[in-house]
Amino acid sequence: LGVVKGYMGFTGVMGHEFVGRVLHGPADWKARRVVCEINCVCGRCERCTSGLSNHCPNRTVIGIDGHPGCFAEQIAVPVRNLHAVPDPVPDEQAVFVEPLAAAIQITRQVDIGRADRVVVLGAGRLGQLVARVLKHSTDDLLLVGRHEMKLQAAEKQGIRTAGSEQFSPNRDADVVVDATGSAEGFATAMQAVRPRGTIVLKSTVALGTEINLAPLVVDEITVVGSRCGPFPDALGMLAAGEVDPAALISRVMPLSGGPAVLDQARDPENLKVLVDVRR
Amino acid sequence: LGVVKGYMGFTGVMGHEFVGRVLHGPADWKARRVVCEINCVCGRCERCTSGLSNHCPNRTVIGIDGHPGCFAEQIAVPVRNLHAVPDPVPDEQAVFVEPLAAAIQITRQVDIGRADRVVVLGAGRLGQLVARVLKHSTDDLLLVGRHEMKLQAAEKQGIRTAGSEQFSPNRDADVVVDATGSAEGFATAMQAVRPRGTIVLKSTVALGTEINLAPLVVDEITVVGSRCGPFPDALGMLAAGEVDPAALISRVMPLSGGPAVLDQARDPENLKVLVDVRR
Repeated sequence: LGVVKGYMGFTGVMGHEFVGRVLHGPADWKARRVVCEINCVCGRCERCTSGLSNHCPNRTVIGIDGHPGCFAEQIAVPVRNLHAVPDPVPDEQAVFVEPLAAAIQITRQVDIGRADRVVVLGAGRLGQLVARVLKHSTDDLLLVGRHEMKLQAAEKQGIRTAGSEQFSPNRDADVVVDATGSAEGFATAMQAVRPRGTIVLKSTVALGTEINLAPLVVDEITVVGSRCGPFPDALGMLAAGEVDPAALISRVMPLSGGPAVLDQARDPENLKVLVDVRR
Repeated sequence: LGVVKGYMGFTGVMGHEFVGRVLHGPADWKARRVVCEINCVCGRCERCTSGLSNHCPNRTVIGIDGHPGCFAEQIAVPVRNLHAVPDPVPDEQAVFVEPLAAAIQITRQVDIGRADRVVVLGAGRLGQLVARVLKHSTDDLLLVGRHEMKLQAAEKQGIRTAGSEQFSPNRDADVVVDATGSAEGFATAMQAVRPRGTIVLKSTVALGTEINLAPLVVDEITVVGSRCGPFPDALGMLAAGEVDPAALISRVMPLSGGPAVLDQARDPENLKVLVDVRR
Protein backbone atom coordinates (compact mmCIF):
# COMPACT_ATOMS: atom_id res chain seq x y z
CA LEU A 1 0.00 0.00 0.00
CA GLY A 2 2.93 2.28 0.70
CA VAL A 3 4.35 1.58 -2.76
CA VAL A 4 1.00 2.46 -4.35
CA LYS A 5 1.15 5.77 -2.50
CA GLY A 6 4.52 6.44 -4.15
CA TYR A 7 7.08 5.04 -1.69
CA MET A 8 10.50 4.91 -3.40
CA GLY A 9 8.86 6.03 -6.66
CA PHE A 10 8.60 2.38 -7.67
CA THR A 11 6.90 1.29 -10.88
CA GLY A 12 6.50 -2.31 -12.04
CA VAL A 13 5.33 -5.57 -10.50
CA MET A 14 4.75 -5.10 -6.77
CA GLY A 15 5.01 -7.57 -3.90
CA HIS A 16 7.96 -8.57 -1.70
CA GLU A 17 6.66 -11.20 0.73
CA PHE A 18 6.36 -14.63 -0.85
CA VAL A 19 6.90 -18.34 -0.73
CA GLY A 20 7.48 -20.34 -3.90
CA ARG A 21 9.16 -23.27 -5.54
CA VAL A 22 12.39 -23.13 -7.59
CA LEU A 23 11.66 -23.80 -11.28
CA HIS A 24 15.04 -22.97 -12.82
CA GLY A 25 18.31 -22.71 -10.92
CA PRO A 26 21.32 -24.58 -9.56
CA ALA A 27 20.75 -28.32 -9.22
CA ASP A 28 20.81 -28.27 -5.43
CA TRP A 29 17.97 -25.73 -5.33
CA LYS A 30 15.80 -27.32 -8.02
CA ALA A 31 12.16 -27.87 -6.96
CA ARG A 32 12.82 -26.75 -3.41
CA ARG A 33 10.30 -24.65 -1.54
CA VAL A 34 11.87 -21.31 -0.71
CA VAL A 35 11.46 -17.86 0.74
CA CYS A 36 13.62 -15.00 -0.46
CA GLU A 37 15.37 -11.99 1.07
CA ILE A 38 14.32 -8.77 -0.60
CA ASN A 39 17.64 -6.88 -0.85
CA CYS A 40 19.53 -7.80 -4.03
CA VAL A 41 23.07 -6.64 -3.29
CA CYS A 42 26.33 -6.30 -5.24
CA GLY A 43 28.43 -8.37 -2.79
CA ARG A 44 31.55 -6.37 -3.64
CA CYS A 45 31.24 -2.88 -2.11
CA GLU A 46 32.55 -1.78 1.28
CA ARG A 47 29.16 -2.24 2.95
CA CYS A 48 28.69 -5.75 1.54
CA THR A 49 32.15 -6.86 2.62
CA SER A 50 31.76 -5.34 6.10
CA GLY A 51 28.58 -7.21 7.03
CA LEU A 52 26.17 -4.41 6.09
CA SER A 53 25.02 -5.91 2.79
CA ASN A 54 21.39 -5.03 3.53
CA HIS A 55 22.56 -1.44 3.15
CA CYS A 56 24.51 -1.97 -0.11
CA PRO A 57 24.24 1.33 -2.02
CA ASN A 58 24.01 -0.63 -5.29
CA ARG A 59 21.13 -2.77 -4.08
CA THR A 60 17.76 -3.25 -5.65
CA VAL A 61 14.83 -4.30 -3.49
CA ILE A 62 12.29 -6.83 -4.72
CA GLY A 63 8.96 -5.18 -5.47
CA ILE A 64 10.11 -1.90 -3.90
CA ASP A 65 13.12 -0.49 -5.68
CA GLY A 66 14.45 -1.50 -9.11
CA HIS A 67 13.52 -5.20 -9.02
CA PRO A 68 10.21 -6.74 -10.18
CA GLY A 69 8.08 -8.08 -7.34
CA CYS A 70 6.27 -11.30 -6.54
CA PHE A 71 2.73 -10.55 -7.74
CA ALA A 72 3.47 -12.72 -10.78
CA GLU A 73 3.45 -16.40 -11.77
CA GLN A 74 7.27 -16.40 -11.80
CA ILE A 75 10.03 -14.20 -10.43
CA ALA A 76 13.79 -14.22 -11.03
CA VAL A 77 15.89 -13.67 -7.89
CA PRO A 78 19.54 -14.07 -6.84
CA VAL A 79 20.26 -17.59 -5.57
CA ARG A 80 22.06 -16.17 -2.54
CA ASN A 81 18.79 -14.57 -1.42
CA LEU A 82 17.04 -17.93 -1.05
CA HIS A 83 16.27 -19.82 2.14
CA ALA A 84 14.80 -23.33 2.03
CA VAL A 85 11.55 -23.71 3.95
CA PRO A 86 11.53 -26.67 6.39
CA ASP A 87 8.89 -29.25 5.47
CA PRO A 88 6.73 -28.81 8.59
CA VAL A 89 6.18 -25.10 7.84
CA PRO A 90 3.16 -24.72 5.55
CA ASP A 91 2.95 -22.07 2.82
CA GLU A 92 0.49 -20.00 4.85
CA GLN A 93 3.16 -19.62 7.53
CA ALA A 94 6.20 -19.35 5.28
CA VAL A 95 4.76 -16.40 3.38
CA PHE A 96 5.18 -14.38 6.60
CA VAL A 97 8.92 -14.93 6.89
CA GLU A 98 9.93 -11.50 5.58
CA PRO A 99 7.80 -9.36 7.97
CA LEU A 100 8.35 -11.85 10.79
CA ALA A 101 12.11 -11.44 10.34
CA ALA A 102 11.59 -7.66 10.45
CA ALA A 103 9.78 -8.09 13.78
CA ILE A 104 12.55 -10.32 15.13
CA GLN A 105 15.12 -7.70 14.17
CA ILE A 106 13.91 -5.60 17.14
CA THR A 107 15.21 -8.24 19.56
CA ARG A 108 18.59 -8.06 17.80
CA GLN A 109 18.81 -4.29 18.22
CA VAL A 110 17.30 -3.76 21.66
CA ASP A 111 17.96 -5.69 24.85
CA ILE A 112 14.51 -6.56 26.25
CA GLY A 113 14.20 -8.22 29.66
CA ARG A 114 11.26 -10.19 31.07
CA ALA A 115 10.31 -7.37 33.46
CA ASP A 116 10.53 -4.63 30.83
CA ARG A 117 7.34 -2.75 30.03
CA VAL A 118 6.93 -2.90 26.25
CA VAL A 119 4.25 -1.07 24.28
CA VAL A 120 3.60 -1.82 20.61
CA LEU A 121 1.74 0.97 18.81
CA GLY A 122 -0.26 -0.24 15.82
CA ALA A 123 -2.19 -3.51 15.60
CA GLY A 124 -1.91 -3.86 11.84
CA ARG A 125 0.04 -6.52 9.99
CA LEU A 126 3.49 -5.59 11.31
CA GLY A 127 2.36 -4.63 14.82
CA GLN A 128 0.65 -8.01 15.19
CA LEU A 129 3.83 -9.86 14.28
CA VAL A 130 5.96 -7.62 16.50
CA ALA A 131 3.66 -8.32 19.47
CA ARG A 132 3.75 -12.08 18.80
CA VAL A 133 7.55 -12.02 18.74
CA LEU A 134 8.07 -9.74 21.76
CA LYS A 135 5.66 -11.84 23.84
CA HIS A 136 8.59 -14.27 24.04
CA SER A 137 10.89 -11.56 25.45
CA THR A 138 8.78 -9.78 28.09
CA ASP A 139 5.98 -10.52 30.55
CA ASP A 140 4.68 -6.93 30.35
CA LEU A 141 3.52 -6.35 26.79
CA LEU A 142 0.71 -4.09 25.58
CA LEU A 143 -0.52 -3.81 21.99
CA VAL A 144 -2.37 -0.58 21.16
CA GLY A 145 -4.60 -0.39 18.08
CA ARG A 146 -7.67 1.24 16.63
CA HIS A 147 -9.73 -1.68 15.37
CA GLU A 148 -11.51 -3.95 17.82
CA MET A 149 -11.30 -6.91 15.46
CA LYS A 150 -7.51 -6.59 15.23
CA LEU A 151 -7.13 -6.29 18.98
CA GLN A 152 -9.24 -9.43 19.42
CA ALA A 153 -6.96 -11.33 17.06
CA ALA A 154 -4.05 -10.47 19.36
CA GLU A 155 -5.97 -11.21 22.56
CA LYS A 156 -6.58 -14.71 21.24
CA GLN A 157 -2.80 -15.18 21.27
CA GLY A 158 -2.61 -14.12 24.91
CA ILE A 159 -1.50 -10.57 24.12
CA ARG A 160 -2.85 -7.76 26.31
CA THR A 161 -4.36 -4.97 24.19
CA ALA A 162 -5.84 -1.49 24.50
CA GLY A 163 -7.82 0.67 22.11
CA SER A 164 -6.11 3.90 21.00
CA GLU A 165 -8.75 5.93 22.86
CA GLN A 166 -8.34 3.99 26.09
CA PHE A 167 -4.55 4.10 26.01
CA SER A 168 -3.14 6.96 28.07
CA PRO A 169 0.63 7.26 27.53
CA ASN A 170 2.32 7.79 30.86
CA ARG A 171 6.06 8.00 30.17
CA ASP A 172 6.65 4.68 31.88
CA ALA A 173 7.38 2.20 29.08
CA ASP A 174 10.92 0.86 28.82
CA VAL A 175 10.50 0.15 25.11
CA VAL A 176 7.90 1.49 22.67
CA VAL A 177 7.65 0.08 19.16
CA ASP A 178 6.01 2.38 16.61
CA ALA A 179 4.41 0.16 13.98
CA THR A 180 1.53 2.53 13.23
CA GLY A 181 2.65 3.65 9.80
CA SER A 182 1.28 7.08 10.74
CA ALA A 183 2.93 10.37 11.59
CA GLU A 184 1.20 10.52 14.98
CA GLY A 185 2.79 7.25 16.02
CA PHE A 186 6.11 8.85 16.87
CA ALA A 187 4.45 11.61 18.93
CA THR A 188 2.53 8.99 20.94
CA ALA A 189 5.71 6.97 21.39
CA MET A 190 7.46 10.03 22.85
CA GLN A 191 4.63 10.36 25.39
CA ALA A 192 4.69 6.67 26.27
CA VAL A 193 8.41 6.04 26.71
CA ARG A 194 10.16 6.62 30.03
CA PRO A 195 13.27 8.77 30.41
CA ARG A 196 16.31 6.80 29.14
CA GLY A 197 13.88 4.44 27.41
CA THR A 198 13.95 3.25 23.80
CA ILE A 199 11.63 3.93 20.87
CA VAL A 200 11.86 1.46 17.99
CA LEU A 201 10.77 2.98 14.69
CA LYS A 202 9.27 0.42 12.33
CA SER A 203 7.20 2.88 10.28
CA THR A 204 8.64 4.34 7.13
CA VAL A 205 6.62 7.50 7.56
CA ALA A 206 7.25 9.00 4.17
CA LEU A 207 5.93 12.43 4.96
CA GLY A 208 7.93 14.94 6.95
CA THR A 209 6.18 16.07 10.11
CA GLU A 210 6.70 18.80 12.67
CA ILE A 211 8.67 17.10 15.41
CA ASN A 212 10.20 18.69 18.46
CA LEU A 213 13.30 16.68 19.21
CA ALA A 214 14.15 18.51 22.46
CA PRO A 215 12.39 15.88 24.63
CA LEU A 216 14.70 13.24 23.12
CA VAL A 217 17.63 15.08 24.67
CA VAL A 218 16.01 16.16 27.94
CA ASP A 219 14.71 12.64 28.59
CA GLU A 220 17.75 10.94 27.01
CA ILE A 221 15.60 8.75 24.79
CA THR A 222 17.16 6.35 22.29
CA VAL A 223 15.42 5.98 18.93
CA VAL A 224 16.27 2.87 16.93
CA GLY A 225 15.37 2.62 13.26
CA SER A 226 14.63 -0.99 12.39
CA ARG A 227 13.98 -2.58 9.02
CA CYS A 228 14.83 -6.03 7.66
CA GLY A 229 15.66 -9.00 9.85
CA PRO A 230 17.18 -12.48 9.93
CA PHE A 231 15.29 -15.01 7.78
CA PRO A 232 16.82 -18.08 9.48
CA ASP A 233 15.49 -16.93 12.87
CA ALA A 234 12.03 -16.36 11.42
CA LEU A 235 11.99 -19.82 9.82
CA GLY A 236 13.18 -21.24 13.14
CA MET A 237 10.35 -19.61 15.10
CA LEU A 238 7.82 -20.93 12.61
CA ALA A 239 9.27 -24.45 12.63
CA ALA A 240 9.22 -24.45 16.44
CA GLY A 241 5.62 -23.26 16.49
CA GLU A 242 6.55 -20.18 18.54
CA VAL A 243 4.43 -17.88 16.40
CA ASP A 244 1.35 -18.62 14.33
CA PRO A 245 0.94 -15.84 11.80
CA ALA A 246 -1.48 -17.85 9.64
CA ALA A 247 -4.29 -16.64 11.92
CA LEU A 248 -3.68 -13.16 10.49
CA ILE A 249 -4.78 -14.20 7.01
CA SER A 250 -8.11 -12.51 6.31
CA ARG A 251 -8.47 -13.79 2.77
CA VAL A 252 -6.68 -15.40 -0.16
CA MET A 253 -7.38 -13.90 -3.58
CA PRO A 254 -6.38 -15.00 -7.06
CA LEU A 255 -3.72 -13.00 -8.93
CA SER A 256 -6.26 -12.77 -11.77
CA GLY A 257 -8.39 -10.65 -9.43
CA GLY A 258 -6.13 -7.69 -10.18
CA PRO A 259 -6.30 -4.43 -8.20
CA ALA A 260 -9.26 -5.72 -6.15
CA VAL A 261 -6.56 -7.29 -3.96
CA LEU A 262 -5.37 -3.82 -3.00
CA ASP A 263 -8.89 -2.73 -2.14
CA GLN A 264 -9.14 -5.66 0.23
CA ALA A 265 -5.73 -4.92 1.74
CA ARG A 266 -6.85 -1.32 2.34
CA ASP A 267 -9.96 -2.43 4.22
CA PRO A 268 -9.24 -1.94 7.94
CA GLU A 269 -11.32 -5.04 8.68
CA ASN A 270 -8.70 -7.16 6.94
CA LEU A 271 -5.33 -8.04 8.35
CA LYS A 272 -3.32 -10.02 5.81
CA VAL A 273 -4.60 -10.56 2.27
CA LEU A 274 -2.69 -13.22 0.33
CA VAL A 275 -2.40 -13.50 -3.44
CA ASP A 276 -2.45 -16.97 -4.94
CA VAL A 277 -0.47 -16.63 -8.19
CA ARG A 278 -1.54 -20.10 -9.36
CA ARG A 279 -5.08 -18.86 -9.81
CA LEU B 1 21.52 31.96 25.85
CA GLY B 2 18.86 29.29 25.39
CA VAL B 3 17.20 30.31 28.64
CA VAL B 4 17.14 33.96 27.51
CA LYS B 5 15.37 32.79 24.35
CA GLY B 6 12.71 31.19 26.55
CA TYR B 7 13.90 27.63 27.10
CA MET B 8 11.80 26.01 29.87
CA GLY B 9 10.05 29.37 30.44
CA PHE B 10 12.55 30.09 33.21
CA THR B 11 12.57 33.39 35.10
CA GLY B 12 15.00 34.32 37.88
CA VAL B 13 18.74 34.16 38.40
CA MET B 14 20.38 32.29 35.51
CA GLY B 15 23.55 30.20 35.37
CA HIS B 16 24.17 26.52 36.02
CA GLU B 17 27.91 25.92 35.55
CA PHE B 18 29.96 27.05 38.51
CA VAL B 19 32.70 26.41 41.02
CA GLY B 20 32.53 27.88 44.51
CA ARG B 21 33.36 27.48 48.14
CA VAL B 22 30.97 26.25 50.86
CA LEU B 23 30.05 29.10 53.24
CA HIS B 24 27.30 27.47 55.27
CA GLY B 25 26.63 23.74 55.47
CA PRO B 26 27.51 20.48 57.22
CA ALA B 27 30.83 20.58 59.05
CA ASP B 28 32.56 18.15 56.69
CA TRP B 29 31.79 20.40 53.69
CA LYS B 30 32.64 23.72 55.35
CA ALA B 31 35.06 25.89 53.32
CA ARG B 32 35.59 23.20 50.70
CA ARG B 33 35.87 24.07 47.04
CA VAL B 34 32.99 22.41 45.19
CA VAL B 35 31.16 21.95 41.94
CA CYS B 36 27.46 21.12 41.92
CA GLU B 37 25.12 18.89 39.94
CA ILE B 38 22.25 20.84 38.47
CA ASN B 39 19.30 18.46 39.01
CA CYS B 40 17.75 18.94 42.45
CA VAL B 41 15.75 15.74 42.93
CA CYS B 42 13.24 14.43 45.49
CA GLY B 43 15.13 11.20 46.24
CA ARG B 44 11.91 9.34 47.00
CA CYS B 45 10.03 8.74 43.72
CA GLU B 46 10.24 5.65 41.55
CA ARG B 47 12.78 7.26 39.20
CA CYS B 48 15.03 8.38 42.04
CA THR B 49 15.00 4.97 43.68
CA SER B 50 15.63 3.16 40.40
CA GLY B 51 18.81 4.99 39.47
CA LEU B 52 17.17 7.55 37.17
CA SER B 53 17.26 10.46 39.63
CA ASN B 54 18.40 12.87 36.89
CA HIS B 55 14.92 12.30 35.45
CA CYS B 56 13.01 12.79 38.72
CA PRO B 57 9.64 14.29 37.73
CA ASN B 58 9.73 16.45 40.87
CA ARG B 59 13.15 17.88 40.10
CA THR B 60 14.15 21.49 39.79
CA VAL B 61 17.19 22.39 37.70
CA ILE B 62 19.61 25.06 38.86
CA GLY B 63 19.33 28.19 36.72
CA ILE B 64 17.06 26.41 34.24
CA ASP B 65 13.87 25.22 35.91
CA GLY B 66 12.50 26.28 39.30
CA HIS B 67 15.80 26.84 41.11
CA PRO B 68 17.81 30.10 41.22
CA GLY B 69 21.07 29.94 39.29
CA CYS B 70 24.71 30.77 39.95
CA PHE B 71 25.01 34.30 38.57
CA ALA B 72 24.97 35.56 42.16
CA GLU B 73 27.38 36.06 45.06
CA GLN B 74 25.81 33.12 46.89
CA ILE B 75 23.61 30.17 45.95
CA ALA B 76 21.81 27.59 48.12
CA VAL B 77 22.01 24.02 46.81
CA PRO B 78 21.32 20.49 48.13
CA VAL B 79 24.37 19.02 49.86
CA ARG B 80 23.97 15.78 47.94
CA ASN B 81 24.57 17.69 44.69
CA LEU B 82 28.08 18.71 45.73
CA HIS B 83 31.39 17.27 44.55
CA ALA B 84 34.66 18.36 46.12
CA VAL B 85 37.20 19.69 43.63
CA PRO B 86 40.67 18.09 43.93
CA ASP B 87 43.33 20.64 44.86
CA PRO B 88 45.35 20.39 41.64
CA VAL B 89 42.30 21.40 39.53
CA PRO B 90 42.17 25.20 39.29
CA ASP B 91 38.90 27.15 39.27
CA GLU B 92 39.25 27.89 35.55
CA GLN B 93 39.12 24.14 34.90
CA ALA B 94 36.60 23.18 37.58
CA VAL B 95 33.99 25.59 36.23
CA PHE B 96 33.77 23.32 33.16
CA VAL B 97 32.80 20.18 35.08
CA GLU B 98 29.07 20.31 34.24
CA PRO B 99 29.42 20.58 30.43
CA LEU B 100 32.48 18.31 30.48
CA ALA B 101 30.40 15.65 32.28
CA ALA B 102 27.70 16.12 29.62
CA ALA B 103 30.35 15.46 26.96
CA ILE B 104 31.62 12.37 28.82
CA GLN B 105 28.04 11.04 29.00
CA ILE B 106 28.31 10.22 25.27
CA THR B 107 30.98 7.61 26.01
CA ARG B 108 28.64 6.07 28.60
CA GLN B 109 25.79 5.76 26.11
CA VAL B 110 27.60 4.81 22.91
CA ASP B 111 30.35 2.26 22.43
CA ILE B 112 33.09 4.03 20.46
CA GLY B 113 36.14 2.10 19.22
CA ARG B 114 39.53 3.46 18.20
CA ALA B 115 38.85 2.80 14.49
CA ASP B 116 35.38 4.34 14.53
CA ARG B 117 34.84 7.39 12.36
CA VAL B 118 33.34 10.07 14.62
CA VAL B 119 32.08 13.46 13.43
CA VAL B 120 31.20 16.25 15.88
CA LEU B 121 28.94 18.91 14.39
CA GLY B 122 29.28 22.30 16.06
CA ALA B 123 32.52 23.83 17.33
CA GLY B 124 30.91 25.95 20.03
CA ARG B 125 31.32 25.49 23.76
CA LEU B 126 29.81 22.00 23.97
CA GLY B 127 31.18 20.74 20.65
CA GLN B 128 34.70 21.72 21.72
CA LEU B 129 34.40 19.73 24.94
CA VAL B 130 32.83 16.77 23.16
CA ALA B 131 35.71 16.69 20.67
CA ARG B 132 38.31 16.91 23.46
CA VAL B 133 36.67 13.99 25.26
CA LEU B 134 36.10 11.77 22.21
CA LYS B 135 39.71 12.30 21.08
CA HIS B 136 40.50 9.81 23.85
CA SER B 137 38.10 7.20 22.37
CA THR B 138 38.83 7.26 18.63
CA ASP B 139 41.70 7.89 16.22
CA ASP B 140 39.35 9.16 13.51
CA LEU B 141 37.68 12.31 14.81
CA LEU B 142 36.50 15.33 12.83
CA LEU B 143 35.09 18.54 14.32
CA VAL B 144 32.93 20.59 11.95
CA GLY B 145 32.24 24.25 12.68
CA ARG B 146 31.56 27.60 11.13
CA HIS B 147 34.08 29.91 12.76
CA GLU B 148 37.74 29.70 11.80
CA MET B 149 38.84 30.92 15.22
CA LYS B 150 36.95 28.11 16.97
CA LEU B 151 38.32 25.48 14.61
CA GLN B 152 41.84 26.76 15.28
CA ALA B 153 41.28 26.38 19.03
CA ALA B 154 40.49 22.71 18.45
CA GLU B 155 43.36 22.19 15.99
CA LYS B 156 45.75 23.37 18.71
CA GLN B 157 44.58 20.38 20.77
CA GLY B 158 45.37 18.01 17.93
CA ILE B 159 41.78 17.74 16.74
CA ARG B 160 41.15 17.51 12.99
CA THR B 161 38.61 20.10 11.86
CA ALA B 162 36.64 21.17 8.78
CA GLY B 163 34.63 24.29 8.00
CA SER B 164 30.90 23.75 7.50
CA GLU B 165 31.26 24.73 3.82
CA GLN B 166 34.14 22.32 3.20
CA PHE B 167 32.47 19.41 4.98
CA SER B 168 30.63 17.09 2.60
CA PRO B 169 28.60 14.51 4.51
CA ASN B 170 29.07 11.13 2.92
CA ARG B 171 27.04 8.64 4.98
CA ASP B 172 30.21 7.03 6.25
CA ALA B 173 30.51 8.11 9.89
CA ASP B 174 29.98 5.48 12.56
CA VAL B 175 28.96 8.10 15.11
CA VAL B 176 27.82 11.69 14.56
CA VAL B 177 27.37 14.05 17.52
CA ASP B 178 25.05 16.99 16.90
CA ALA B 179 26.20 19.81 19.14
CA THR B 180 25.17 22.59 16.78
CA GLY B 181 22.22 23.90 18.73
CA SER B 182 20.55 24.49 15.36
CA ALA B 183 17.69 22.77 13.58
CA GLU B 184 19.89 22.02 10.57
CA GLY B 185 22.27 20.01 12.71
CA PHE B 186 20.07 16.94 12.74
CA ALA B 187 19.57 17.03 8.97
CA THR B 188 23.34 17.21 8.43
CA ALA B 189 23.84 14.38 10.92
CA MET B 190 21.43 12.20 8.92
CA GLN B 191 23.53 12.83 5.79
CA ALA B 192 26.80 12.12 7.58
CA VAL B 193 25.97 8.92 9.45
CA ARG B 194 26.40 5.49 7.85
CA PRO B 195 23.62 2.89 7.74
CA ARG B 196 23.31 1.24 11.19
CA GLY B 197 25.32 4.16 12.59
CA THR B 198 24.52 6.33 15.62
CA ILE B 199 23.55 9.98 15.93
CA VAL B 200 24.02 11.52 19.37
CA LEU B 201 21.73 14.50 19.96
CA LYS B 202 23.24 17.05 22.32
CA SER B 203 21.19 20.01 21.07
CA THR B 204 17.97 20.87 22.80
CA VAL B 205 16.55 22.28 19.60
CA ALA B 206 13.49 23.93 21.10
CA LEU B 207 11.73 24.59 17.83
CA GLY B 208 9.87 21.89 15.99
CA THR B 209 11.21 21.32 12.50
CA GLU B 210 10.08 19.41 9.46
CA ILE B 211 11.90 16.11 9.74
CA ASN B 212 11.49 13.06 7.57
CA LEU B 213 12.14 10.09 9.82
CA ALA B 214 11.89 7.47 7.05
CA PRO B 215 15.68 7.40 6.50
CA LEU B 216 16.10 6.45 10.18
CA VAL B 217 14.19 3.26 9.44
CA VAL B 218 15.56 2.53 5.97
CA ASP B 219 19.15 3.02 7.14
CA GLU B 220 18.49 1.58 10.62
CA ILE B 221 20.02 4.58 12.37
CA THR B 222 20.07 4.85 16.15
CA VAL B 223 19.49 8.30 17.66
CA VAL B 224 20.62 8.79 21.24
CA GLY B 225 19.46 11.79 23.26
CA SER B 226 22.17 12.78 25.69
CA ARG B 227 22.09 15.35 28.48
CA CYS B 228 23.80 15.39 31.87
CA GLY B 229 26.81 13.28 32.74
CA PRO B 230 28.95 11.94 35.58
CA PHE B 231 30.68 14.68 37.61
CA PRO B 232 33.27 12.31 39.16
CA ASP B 233 34.50 11.28 35.72
CA ALA B 234 34.79 14.90 34.63
CA LEU B 235 36.75 15.81 37.75
CA GLY B 236 38.93 12.76 37.13
CA MET B 237 39.75 13.80 33.57
CA LEU B 238 40.64 17.30 34.74
CA ALA B 239 42.80 16.03 37.61
CA ALA B 240 44.62 13.70 35.21
CA GLY B 241 45.18 16.53 32.73
CA GLU B 242 43.37 14.63 29.97
CA VAL B 243 41.43 17.68 28.87
CA ASP B 244 42.29 21.35 29.15
CA PRO B 245 39.10 23.35 28.83
CA ALA B 246 40.63 26.51 30.29
CA ALA B 247 41.93 27.33 26.80
CA LEU B 248 38.28 27.83 25.80
CA ILE B 249 37.90 30.86 28.09
CA SER B 250 37.61 33.95 25.91
CA ARG B 251 37.08 36.40 28.74
CA VAL B 252 36.25 36.76 32.42
CA MET B 253 33.74 39.49 33.29
CA PRO B 254 32.54 40.85 36.61
CA LEU B 255 29.02 40.02 37.78
CA SER B 256 28.53 43.76 38.20
CA GLY B 257 28.86 44.06 34.43
CA GLY B 258 25.26 42.86 34.13
CA PRO B 259 23.71 41.85 30.80
CA ALA B 260 26.88 42.82 28.90
CA VAL B 261 28.04 39.30 29.78
CA LEU B 262 25.30 37.89 27.59
CA ASP B 263 26.29 40.14 24.69
CA GLN B 264 29.81 38.76 24.94
CA ALA B 265 28.54 35.17 25.14
CA ARG B 266 26.49 35.79 22.00
CA ASP B 267 29.51 37.01 20.05
CA PRO B 268 30.58 34.13 17.76
CA GLU B 269 34.18 35.22 18.25
CA ASN B 270 33.96 34.21 21.90
CA LEU B 271 33.94 30.66 23.17
CA LYS B 272 33.46 30.61 26.94
CA VAL B 273 32.74 33.78 28.86
CA LEU B 274 33.12 33.42 32.63
CA VAL B 275 31.43 35.52 35.30
CA ASP B 276 33.47 36.38 38.38
CA VAL B 277 30.88 36.89 41.13
CA ARG B 278 33.49 38.33 43.51
CA ARG B 279 33.78 41.42 41.36
